[in-house]
Formats: sequence, structure tokens, C-alpha cells
Amino acid sequence: MQTNEQELRDAQAFLMEHDDFLVVSHVQPDGDAVSSTLAVGWLLSCLGKNYTMVNEGPIPRRMSYLWHADQIIDLSENPLETTYKHVICVDCADFQRVGQTQKYFAEKAHILNIDHHPTNDAYGSVNLIHPKAAATAEILFDLIEFMGIELTEDVATALYTGLLTDTGGFRYSNTTPKVMAAASKLLQYGVDGPGLSELLLEQLTYPQLRVLTKALNKLQLSEDGTIGWVSITPEDMIETGAANEDLEGIVNYPRNIQGVEVGMLFKVINDNAVKVSLRSAGKVDVAAVAQSFGGGGHVRAAGARIEGNLEQIIKQVVERVKVQL
Amino acid sequence: MQTNEQELRDAQAFLMEHDDFLVVSHVQPDGDAVSSTLAVGWLLSCLGKNYTMVNEGPIPRRMSYLWHADQIIDLSENPLETTYKHVICVDCADFQRVGQTQKYFAEKAHILNIDHHPTNDAYGSVNLIHPKAAATAEILFDLIEFMGIELTEDVATALYTGLLTDTGGFRYSNTTPKVMAAASKLLQYGVDGPGLSELLLEQLTYPQLRVLTKALNKLQLSEDGTIGWVSITPEDMIETGAANEDLEGIVNYPRNIQGVEVGMLFKVINDNAVKVSLRSAGKVDVAAVAQSFGGGGHVRAAGARIEGNLEQIIKQVVERVKVQL
Ligand SMILES: [Mn+2]
Ligand SMILES: [Mn+2]
Repeated sequence: MQTNEQELRDAQAFLMEHDDFLVVSHVQPDGDAVSSTLAVGWLLSCLGKNYTMVNEGPIPRRMSYLWHADQIIDLSENPLETTYKHVICVDCADFQRVGQTQKYFAEKAHILNIDHHPTNDAYGSVNLIHPKAAATAEILFDLIEFMGIELTEDVATALYTGLLTDTGGFRYSNTTPKVMAAASKLLQYGVDGPGLSELLLEQLTYPQLRVLTKALNKLQLSEDGTIGWVSITPEDMIETGAANEDLEGIVNYPRNIQGVEVGMLFKVINDNAVKVSLRSAGKVDVAAVAQSFGGGGHVRAAGARIEGNLEQIIKQVVERVKVQL
Repeated sequence: MQTNEQELRDAQAFLMEHDDFLVVSHVQPDGDAVSSTLAVGWLLSCLGKNYTMVNEGPIPRRMSYLWHADQIIDLSENPLETTYKHVICVDCADFQRVGQTQKYFAEKAHILNIDHHPTNDAYGSVNLIHPKAAATAEILFDLIEFMGIELTEDVATALYTGLLTDTGGFRYSNTTPKVMAAASKLLQYGVDGPGLSELLLEQLTYPQLRVLTKALNKLQLSEDGTIGWVSITPEDMIETGAANEDLEGIVNYPRNIQGVEVGMLFKVINDNAVKVSLRSAGKVDVAAVAQSFGGGGHVRAAGARIEGNLEQIIKQVVERVKVQL
């Protein structure tokens, strides 16, 4: 379960041997991406190194409490003037995930690739990849400990944020004993764990709650109660003022009903296209269902964009899920 | 933070010196109460002691996965024929919390009182009270460790259940480094933490989700967005088939809206009475508001039963919260 020691040694050498780094993460950064960017920045500042933290776009406003979050440059607003020979990529499963930040990688740049995605293809010159880690933040926790550097509340708060968001609040199956032990240690540095849980996991915006209500009003169950679904129309989006990101998590409501094996959210894109998100309690491989409609995903979480009208599509998808049950 | 060593020693002596115990917890037992009852039963079985586990009423069906959950006798269904000289009370803040189980305490029974409520008045002959513990399960974790008894997956699952439910899934302010370290250790014994989170924290019944939807449809915000409330009528309860326990957690939805300082749920009891539940984000002391209506509670969670009609009562309570803001 521990991060590979040789890889830790190589990553440490990469940080020690060079002086000026570009630190990047993936497009539309999540909690782990932002936190890992900042944790690497913090580590480099401890080593007295120069570094520039960037992202293709803005970081979520919700994460502005993080130490030096305002120092992650939004390249869509503030392009850089130089390129970098030494780049550290965090939480990027493949090279394309870095997005437009790659414009600032020097030709033949050396890349340190730090990531936890099992699909990571080791695109770095040096790779620190630990697929059993719950978050890239967990790997950085190991690296900082390996290098014998004492944590501070600032970096501990960043690392806790990464663990918290990538484990869904210590609820997903990646919540290992090691994650909980790391969280325990981070709390000892003064992290406000309950405050972070509230801010990142419980807080809702008013449009979010209103669009959730619109969806729940359309809740339907199959006759035997094993399939549940809700839907959202363009009118719902306009009336509630919700953005696409406000729909995140809605599909879990039908999915979490006792007895439901597959929960779905149908989002009407326009008169002739619907996006469906599918979540499985485990029995049904929803990736297979999504694939049969030209989509894809994982066994328990998948999606597809389907041409047609809402009523027809609901009927088709429900039928195809029934076959799998 | 550690449980007091002298108290641990005294508790151990109580268990070792006697042979036949009644193990009880509080009326309407929550996750911690059930888990702690079972953990004490497990500990006594390790010591080769006789014991009878009881509760005034049934234990929640949701918790039937727990080791020997079916051995906790529901006294409302199955009265006992004897009384017990040695009683272990877990998670009971005061003696009255044991409810009808006290019928089976012998006169001058010796009580071992194991609890984490700060208000516990030490009613036991022996008291093992640790107000900084997140759950009684945390104290039992300490006691089992103190006695040098090796955990098993069964008891670890019970203890994890207690920690999980009393910390709201490691989110409340009682989520200390020690809680997370204990959870880490328990996971090492094979506890299915993610499965328990899903079962105990995420799963909803269909009536629960429907009554939540009814409430959200009536969501209102004060003009400045600092007070949010929803309401439930007797008709909502009938239409959705919801029971009172299905309303738990609904008040958190208005409370969790960004910018809301006080969230409220108004439940119409009949034409002339309404129950209000209040939750504060921290600024407002809602216990004071509740008290002004003859109710009570804590700074961040309080409630009152008020005579009158819904519209009037909403107006009055909102006005009184505004004064505090
Ligand atoms: Mn990640
Ligand atoms: Mn408790």
C-alpha cells in the first residue's frame, strides 16, 4: 500500500536537482488537483526553489481558502512569457489532461508525473504513480514524509482537502486504513476537518437546491422499484439559474433509494438530444448500458449522449437496464 | 484526550469481578447505542461471562447487519423473568434514558455507566465517562485496548458504526485525530467502511425522498438570504407515507444553502400547533430563539412546539431570528 520507495527517491532527486519548476494540474481542477498543485508549491518553497503554479483555467472559488490558492495562475487570463524545462504534473492521468498548460512546456521538457489514476500511462521522465492511493494528495503526504519535512497547518489543510474530496468525505471504496491514518495526522496540525466537510461537501447554492427540487419532482421508479430516475429540461435550468456543475450529485438521489439498483439522470440538451448519467449499486454494469448507446464510463458510474426525444429515450434506457437486472 | 486510566481500571474490575450482567442502552437507540451494547456483549463473551442485552424497544432494522443484533431483547415484546444485580449502561446521559429497562435492575443494583455525553451526571456505581469522546464506541475502543483484548471484524464493525453515526460520517466537530486513528485501526480488521457509510448515511427510503421533495417545494428565503425554511403538513405525511423519523435531516437543506445562517423546518402537528426545528451555522444562538417560544436545545440545533397557525408562526419565528442576526 505504501508508495514505492524507489519512485519516491527519484521524485525527490528531481526536486533537489533542478531550480525552476512549472507546476500544473488537469483542466477543470477538482479538490485533489488544486490541493496537490499547492502542496507541491509548498514543498518547493521549503526547498528554496523557484516555481510557478498554473492551470488552464480558473480554480473553483470555493477553494480560495487554501494557502496560496490565489497564486495559481489562470492561463486563460494571464498567459506566461516563458517556457519551462522542468514540469511537475499532478493528478493528470494522461498528458492531454494538462490542457493548454502544455504551451509552456519547453521542447523536451523533463516531467515529474505524480498521480494516483490506475490508467496513468507513465508519460513523465520521472513517474511517481500509486494507483492504490485515494488521491494524489495521499502520494504527496508520503513524499513529504519521505523527505523528512515537517508539515504545517497550511499544507495539511491542502492535503486533507484532497483526501476529503477524492474519497467523497471518507465514504468511497478508496477509503483505506492509510487514508484514515493520514487524515488523523493532518488533523493534528490544526486542520479544521469539520469546517472543510461543511464547505466542500454539504454547502449548496440556492440554484443547486432549486434545480435538485425540480429533478426530484420528476422522480420515477420502475414497477419493481429497482430502477429510479429523474430528469432536467432546459426550462428547469433557466428557471432556477443553475449551471451544469450544479447538477453534480443529483443522480445519487434516485440511486440511494432503498432497493434501487440503478439510478439515472436524464438531462435534455435540446429537442433532439439527451444526456443520461447512470449510477449502479453494484449488480448492474452501467458502463455496458452506456456503451450500447455510444457512451462509456465505469461499472458503477457511466453516461451517454443519445439522439431523440426524452420520453422515448427514457423508455429505451430503462428497457436496456431491465435486461441487465 | 485519552480516556482516564483509573476509570478504565475500575471498569475492567467491574467486568472481571462479577458473572452475570444486564447490558442496556437508551430508549430509541441510535447507531452508537446499539453498537456499544453489542461491543460490551462481545467483550463479556471474550471474558466468558454471562450477559443479557436488552432495550426498551426494538432496534432499528437498518442495523440488523451487526454481530448478534438479533440478541438484543426488545422488552416491549419479550419481558424478562428476573432482575439483575449488575447492570452496564452505555450511551445513557442520565438514568431516565434507560427507560423501561430499569424494571429489571435489582434493588441496589451496581451500575457501570459508560458514556460520552458532557451532561452525564455519573449515576453509576462505577463511571467511565469521557466527554471528549465522539461516541461511546470510542470509549469502548479504548477499554478493549486497555484490557489487551484483540479486536475481531465483528466488534470492529460495531465500533466503526458507532463512530460513523455519532460523527455524521466524520463531519461533525467531534471528529478528532483520535477518532480518525481509531477508524483507521478498525478498517484494518476488515470493516467495510464504505458499505456502512452507504447503508447508514446515504440510503433513503422512497417515502423519505418524497417527503423531502414536498418540503423543498416550499423552500423560502428571507430577502437577504440569511434565513431559509421549509414546511411539512399532515397532508404531506399522508400523501408520501412518511413517518416522523423520515423528517430527520430535512432541516439541513435550507441550513446548507450558501449564505444561510439559520435553517428551519416547520412541521404542522394539527390546525393549532406547529413544531419548529432550527439549525444555526454558528452566528445565531438558536437555543435562545427556541427558548423564547418555550422550547430548548443547543446553540446550533434547537426546537420548539408553538400554538397557532403555520403562516403566523413562520412570521413570528423569522422575525425573532432576524433580531439575533
Ligand atoms: Mn485525484
Ligand atoms: Mn453516543
